[in-house]
Amino acid sequence: MSATVEFWFEFASTYSYPAALRIEDVVRAAGVELDWRPFLLGPIFAAQGWQDSPFNVYPAKGRYMWRDLARVCADLDVPLRHPSQFPRNGLPAARVSVAAAREPWLPAFVRGVYRANFAKDRDIGDAEVLGAVLAAVGAEPARWLERASAADVKDALRTQTERAADHGIFGAPSFRVGTELFWGNDRLEQAVAWASGAA
Amino acid sequence: MSATVEFWFEFASTYSYPAALRIEDVVRAAGVELDWRPFLLGPIFAAQGWQDSPFNVYPAKGRYMWRDLARVCADLDVPLRHPSQFPRNGLPAARVSVAAAREPWLPAFVRGVYRANFAKDRDIGDAEVLGAVLAAVGAEPARWLERASAADVKDALRTQTERAADHGIFGAPSFRVGTELFWGNDRLEQAVAWASGAA
Repeated sequence: MSATVEFWFEFASTYSYPAALRIEDVVRAAGVELDWRPFLLGPIFAAQGWQDSPFNVYPAKGRYMWRDLARVCADLDVPLRHPSQFPRNGLPAARVSVAAAREPWLPAFVRGVYRANFAKDRDIGDAEVLGAVLAAVGAEPARWLERASAADVKDALRTQTERAADHGIFGAPSFRVGTELFWGNDRLEQAVAWASGAA
Repeated sequence: MSATVEFWFEFASTYSYPAALRIEDVVRAAGVELDWRPFLLGPIFAAQGWQDSPFNVYPAKGRYMWRDLARVCADLDVPLRHPSQFPRNGLPAARVSVAAAREPWLPAFVRGVYRANFAKDRDIGDAEVLGAVLAAVGAEPARWLERASAADVKDALRTQTERAADHGIFGAPSFRVGTELFWGNDRLEQAVAWASGAA
């Protein structure tokens, strides 16, 4: 059994927001390793016939999700502002995350992007917004935004998204421990328990 | 704030199974009232464009659900046998439940039907199977199966399903407290806390 939790996240994904903010604390408390795995839901949703977020395709589900997310964030003391645009384009931030996979500031960058989208209602598809998040975590904006658009980084994100589909991932956040899959912010504790051998 | 939890369930629904088995204990411990609300997902799914369970329409989600349900049931010590047919026809059992809304054996009947489907792999659309569940809870099978096919009972179930859609219900199990909606077996405790004023 692996002692690593893979955290598969998409920057446009609503429930990935509370998961991203709390996952480091949860895994650290359990003494397991954390592997950040940015990917794109777009191609995975497209394969299911959706050209938009299922929360927009199915309005009743969407209305419920926003209310439920508000309750979840309130319980966790995580600020939430309903974004004026949903879903936002998570592609550039996902590419930065792939490029910066080995950088110590990656977790802070990921949290910063989620806060920009879901707490500050900023357009995370915009280079200026991402640049401000990069600067805030001590990374050079111009360098990383350029790196993010390199062909090898684009390919790596495409490969990672294909791998997500191969693993049976159909939504975000997803957590993977060995070959065991857990879906949803609600399942974070269970995934971590699984990784630590307690489940 | 209401001190009643409405439990909206569909007999074919997988996650309604553990919820149905444990809900009476959970609400009793919290001292809140429980209102059993059988309804049909078929018309609600059809309105979303699905002629089948979304777990069949979207195979990756379906594969995950069965694995997740197995973990959920194992955690709760609830037996689970993957039904050889899914989804099963919950219509006759839902009609019996509507007809028997005021009968003291209704909760035991509901649990018996879920166990027949998900623990014993029996066809709950079959009158003989339902008759055995009725007999086991001390209800007269012939009387209740006949009552279930009366026009007023059929109408009442149709109305209840329309009311579910009006309430924004899009899946099962759902819990409703006042106008607050909670979706999924995972949300039972939160719904009960809401009803008891603790949330």
